[in-house]
Order: sequence, then structure tokens, then C-alpha cells
Amino acid sequence: MLDTIAAIDDEVMDACTKGVPGSGGALRLGDIGRQGWNLLAGDLPLPVAVIRADVMAANSRWMAAFLAATGAVIAPHGKTTMSPQLFRRQIADGAWAITVATVQQLCVARRFGIRRVILANQVAGSEAVRMLVAELAGDDGFDFYMLADSVEGVDTIAAEARRAGLARPVNLLLEGGLEGGRTGCRDVESALGVARAIAAASPWVALRGVEGFEGLARGATAEERLDVVERFLDHLCTIAAACQDEALFAPGPVILTAGGSSFYDLVIDRFARAGIEGAMIVTRSGCYLTHDAAMYCEAFAGVRERSAAARAIAGGLAPALELWACVQSRPEPGRAILTLGKRDAGHDAGLPIPQVWYRPDTHRAPEPLSPGHALVEMNDQHAHMVLPAQSPLRFGDMVGLGISHPCTTFDKWRIIHLVDESYRVTGAIRTFF
Amino acid sequence: MLDTIAAIDDEVMDACTKGVPGSGGALRLGDIGRQGWNLLAGDLPLPVAVIRADVMAANSRWMAAFLAATGAVIAPHGKTTMSPQLFRRQIADGAWAITVATVQQLCVARRFGIRRVILANQVAGSEAVRMLVAELAGDDGFDFYMLADSVEGVDTIAAEARRAGLARPVNLLLEGGLEGGRTGCRDVESALGVARAIAAASPWVALRGVEGFEGLARGATAEERLDVVERFLDHLCTIAAACQDEALFAPGPVILTAGGSSFYDLVIDRFARAGIEGAMIVTRSGCYLTHDAAMYCEAFAGVRERSAAARAIAGGLAPALELWACVQSRPEPGRAILTLGKRDAGHDAGLPIPQVWYRPDTHRAPEPLSPGHALVEMNDQHAHMVLPAQSPLRFGDMVGLGISHPCTTFDKWRIIHLVDESYRVTGAIRTFF
Repeated sequence: MLDTIAAIDDEVMDACTKGVPGSGGALRLGDIGRQGWNLLAGDLPLPVAVIRADVMAANSRWMAAFLAATGAVIAPHGKTTMSPQLFRRQIADGAWAITVATVQQLCVARRFGIRRVILANQVAGSEAVRMLVAELAGDDGFDFYMLADSVEGVDTIAAEARRAGLARPVNLLLEGGLEGGRTGCRDVESALGVARAIAAASPWVALRGVEGFEGLARGATAEERLDVVERFLDHLCTIAAACQDEALFAPGPVILTAGGSSFYDLVIDRFARAGIEGAMIVTRSGCYLTHDAAMYCEAFAGVRERSAAARAIAGGLAPALELWACVQSRPEPGRAILTLGKRDAGHDAGLPIPQVWYRPDTHRAPEPLSPGHALVEMNDQHAHMVLPAQSPLRFGDMVGLGISHPCTTFDKWRIIHLVDESYRVTGAIRTFF
Repeated sequence: MLDTIAAIDDEVMDACTKGVPGSGGALRLGDIGRQGWNLLAGDLPLPVAVIRADVMAANSRWMAAFLAATGAVIAPHGKTTMSPQLFRRQIADGAWAITVATVQQLCVARRFGIRRVILANQVAGSEAVRMLVAELAGDDGFDFYMLADSVEGVDTIAAEARRAGLARPVNLLLEGGLEGGRTGCRDVESALGVARAIAAASPWVALRGVEGFEGLARGATAEERLDVVERFLDHLCTIAAACQDEALFAPGPVILTAGGSSFYDLVIDRFARAGIEGAMIVTRSGCYLTHDAAMYCEAFAGVRERSAAARAIAGGLAPALELWACVQSRPEPGRAILTLGKRDAGHDAGLPIPQVWYRPDTHRAPEPLSPGHALVEMNDQHAHMVLPAQSPLRFGDMVGLGISHPCTTFDKWRIIHLVDESYRVTGAIRTFF
């Protein structure tokens, strides 16, 4: 079994794993960067997912600078990439913790040495609760936080902690939510009810802060959406203040945490004004690291528009994750079919965006695609692309595509190649979905 | 490296793989059925995917009976499950071949001993073409077929076969397509152009038949859709007749193949009347084995309505693949949040359908959910369910869901538990996406 990051390098892969060429036979993942492969030389079987390593490194630097300027910390959502190699890089770049969504994701983070984890859910189900408490019981150095939005949820985790005789409390973050939204207490009264239940279940659980996820806020316009986000953040601050007034927080820093990848600037601004003593602001963006070419590209424009701190930092987030596919068919003058489908790319926040093309043995570098090249449909294993009458694309040409919503593209791949700006393969990351 | 089906049983799994409990520690996949686990006893961490083994076996028998009655054979599309254990079961149950969509999928089928494969695409990209020809060169007993819809596609595979000095031709199936559809020649003239290119590239390639995929046929109404399917099948038969007239088929049986999981009855009917000498009809449904609770459930009603042969067979296809999740939150009277999301279930052909619920320590068997329980949204890791005011569901209750479109749910899981009708875990299958 794997148990360290180095063990990932020792894992043996072959062409049964999507994206691994057949020519080299079976090889260690850690040796992928030593094969001399280049995407543009046709060394990889398409479709393939690649991360431009220099772009990703610059994104990481940008976020570190933004956090330094604002005084917040980050617990990046690991569910985006589910790649322990990237978790470790995020920690090395200053992340305070890694966030996960499920107990399986927690197990992956723990296996690969992550010592502080936020599980951004109220864990339900007897086996999941047992697994969680066993993980806590097995390592005193494991610093762990999870959510609570109901008395039943609190009682369940407290009962298992008691049953297991856990030597320290399970740290809980009280979750606030908006009417019509996802999880979380809709009003201060019910939130206080949960906070009091946590206090009553001491020493098995401890209230360590307040949490919310503003990323699902809806609005008919961008402004309306911002209003909802502001109202939601106000709600979280009101809950935190009420808990402070009743002295329901356990001793120590009070964690205020929210922040997907769209509104972290607003989260930091608002929490800084919450008036909570000893508050520590924790953001949780998962997508800043690879960013994307659509949904979060637009969201980042909003961050820069709103935040002077963001504008003051040189550079900015840029898309690092790309998909490459081949033209498999040109069945009609205005249509091409690419070797890429729902098995390879997310389609929940827009279809992938064809951006460049490359003809092996002809081009020296990828060329931009003219306007009018666009995906209009994806099947499981195919993409339908419309194109202008003068499009040069023909059978066998390579097409590079940007994506929208990294989370639902990462989970389509077991390995993703790291490439330099010449598309030379310098390594690979492994995902654990 | 794995290399036989038995090797899958030897693979060691632990809680880092979604669906595997933590309590047992690491264990061989082949030992999963010996742990005495029961889904309803709370032994599995939710969400989890399970296949009701008896239902799947009955589905396999139904399809075998239908094929026996109609005289066609099946090369089930392996991309649906990507599970070599299920491929082997399909072969044992009489499948003529396994169909795949990509060279990676081909490698998986080959690694686990599948000797006859249809790759239902025209392979593009230099590494993919090299991998394919290397696989053919490495085993004279490998019986392989792939598609061609362009002269460029034919020339590419023929050139690689020549370069590699392949001792036998690459078998090609000429693909017909419909205007506005996916791949495939839109008219008989262009199809004949490809067929002549295949003949001209002898002995490196050989024309073995005609292929199409009718499953994407669109229509404003069900009847219009049937008309498009009929027109498409006519088109394929016309292409086949034209190739026969010009004596373009290589000696031996002529393969006529089409058939997703919606219209295989029409495919068989029409091809039987094609007037092609030595014709062998090959259907390719991938979804019959587990079926589903929505999209293919409806399609199967159509098959039975149209086909006397289907109606004459006792029983019928029934949904074998289920998802189970927990109620994680009841944040509002009319809403529950389940521990299940886009990472766990396809959402491209309708959201999963909550069907039953189970309260540990209270129920003896799953109870039907009353009308009005329905998913209205899924995020990456959550499902939003609306429910009637009198719904009994509360935190920690288990919910069983049917799915729509097996392909996009199978690919969310690395292992899927096999269960008996009491939800006792009797084994597990491994997928290779």
C-alpha cells in the first residue's frame, strides 16, 4: 500500500491508465518526467489532461501574496484535485490546512501526511462516523475540524467519541446556511440551539468557530448575487457574535471560515469586521491552483474589480489545466468530432473551450483557433465541434481546450501530466477520487 | 501489475478507495465478499454504489434469450462498465466480442484476456495508432475491428500497419452517419470513397462490414425519433449494398453492426432485411446488464412495445445498479441534503431518483419513499432533495436511489459492491476508467 508521497512515485502505470502511452511499457509514475515525452511530438495518447507547471506555480504565488496582504489563511479544498502531491505543494506554499468533503477524502489526505484537515460537512452514517473517530484516536497530532448544523449531528459525533473514549474533543464549526441553499442553520436561533448542544456535549466535542459556503449564492444579476453573498456573510457574523455573547466558543482562536473560489475577497473583508475576539479567518478556495478558462476566469475578474489588494499584486490567476484531443472526423463542412467526452471533461459549468490547434510535422507551436470554433455537445467519449467554413482542421490535428470548473475535470483523470511551456512532460500527478 | 482476472481479486484496497469501509483495514478485493458486510447494517461508508447481483444475472439471461430468438449476436459496449470482471461474465454469457471506445479501453480489455474487440471509433493520433498496431502485432489470436469514415483515417492506419510490417490486415468497418449527427459518412458516395480507399490499401487493411450508431437520433417526438432511426438504418443498408455491388468487402462474413441500448430490436429487424450475403448482425448495447431506473427503463418499454420477440421472453430488464446515501441535513421543512453528488452519480440524463429509505436500528427492510421525494440539484458532493411536509426523513437515514444512464455513474466508482437481495455484500467489481 502507498503511504508516503514517495510511494506515489513508485506506483507502476501502463497504458491501462488513461493518458499513459503504450510505447514505454509499464513504468513508475516518478519516471514519467524522465521519458523525454512531448505532447506536441505525439508522444501521448489523446485525449490527455495536462497542467502547465509554471502557470500553476505562478497561481500559487499569487494566492500567497493575496493572503499575505489580507491577513487571512487558506485551507484549500482538496476535493478539487484530490491529489496528495498538490496537497503537499499547497502546504509547502503556506496553506494552513487541507479541506475535504468526505471521510474517504480525509483518509487520502491522512495517508499522505496531511496533519490538519477541515472536513467541510457534518458527517453522517455509522461507518463514516466510526472511521472519522478512529482516525482521531489513532494520532494525537491530527488537528481536525468538521461542521455541525443540527443537534442530531452533534449528538451522533459526540456519542461515537464517547464510545471510543476519545482523549480530546472533536472540533466543530457551526454551519450557517441561507434559505433555499444547501446545509447550514437558516436562523440565529437554530444555530444557537446547535451551539448549546455542542457545549452540553463537552468534553466530547468543542465549538471552534463558524462556517459557511457562499459559493452557491444565486441571483438574477451579478449584483443581486453579490447582495446574497453579503447577506450570507452577515448571517455568519451574526451567528458568531451570538455565540461569543453566550461564551459558547471553546477557549482558543475562533475560526471564521467560508470562501469558495469566487468571493474569497468578500469573505475576508466581512469577517475582518465581525468583531470576534481571537478570530482567525480561513478561506478555502480549491480552484485557484489550476484556475480555469471560463467560470473562475470570470469570477477572478470580479475579485480584481472589487479588491484593491488583489489589484495591487502583479500577475494574476491563469488557466493551468488543459485538455488535448484529436480531430477524429470531419463528417460535414461545419463540424468536427474530437476524441474527448464526458469521461474526460466536466460539462456542468459549460463545455470545454477549443483554444489552440497543432498539426504534427507542420507546426512549430500551437496556433490560436479562429473565432467560431466551439463545442456544442459532448457524448461519453466524443465532442461535437462547430467550426467556420475556412477552418483548417482536418483528421489527426490536435486541439487544445480550456475547461470550466476544475473539480469536474480533475475527477475524470487518474494521472495528469505536468508540462513546461513547450509541452515537454516534466512529471505527473496522481488523483484519488 | 495486474494481468488476469484473478489479479483483480489480489488487489489490496482500503478506505482511500471510495466505498471501502475503514474498519477492516486494508484487504484484498477478492475478500470483500467474505467480510459479512451488509449495506443496511451500516457496514459501508456512504455514498456507495451497489449492483444487485441477482437482477444483473436476470438481465444477462434476458438479453441472451432475446438474441437467441432473433439470431443476432452482441458485442456489448465495455465503455459502460469498464469492468473486466463484467466483460468476462458477458463473454461467458455468450457475447461475441467486447466493444470499446478508445485505445486505453482496448488495453484494459486485452490485459484481462478479451480476445475479440470492436473499437467503435476511427482511431486518431500517432501514439494511439501505434499502440493499436503494436497490440495487433503482439498476438496473432487477437481478433480486432475498428471504424473508418474517411480516406485520411484509412491511410493513417494502413501506413502504420505497413511501417510495423503487420502480418495481417487491420479489419475495418465502414461507418455511416446522419447529417447533423456524430461521425460517419453522410452519403453513399463518400462512403464508397472510403471503401475504395480500404480496398486500395490492401493488404494492410480489410473491409469487414458496415457500422453506425443510431442512439443519438433526435426527433421532436418519439415517433419522429423512430423515423430518424429507420432512415439511419436504411442508410447503413444502402452503404452495405453498394459495397457488396462493387465487391469491396474482404472475403468472409460481412458484419453489420449498430445498436446502443435503445433500438437494438430495430437494428436487428432492419439488418436482417439488408440482403447482404454472409451478413452477421452484431448489436452493441452496453447498458442492458445493469439497466437503469429512468432513461433506459423508458427505452426498454419501447423495445417491448415494438418487438414481439421481446414480449415473448419472460421477465425483462430491471435496474441492478443503485446508489445509497445518507441524509446529512434537514435544513428546511421541505428539503434534505444527501451525501451524494456529481462525483458519485451521472447527471447528464436526469438526476438520480430517490426510491427507498432505511432507518438503521428501526427498519427491517428498505421502505418505499412516498411521491414528492425528488432530487432537484446536485453539487460536486451534495444532492438537494425536496420532500413532502410529512416526510419521515431525518439526519442519518439512508436513502436508496436509482440512476439514469449507467455509463456516467459507473465512471464515478473504482469499486462497486455486489449485493444479494438482502443487501449483503457478496463481492465487488473493479472499474478501469
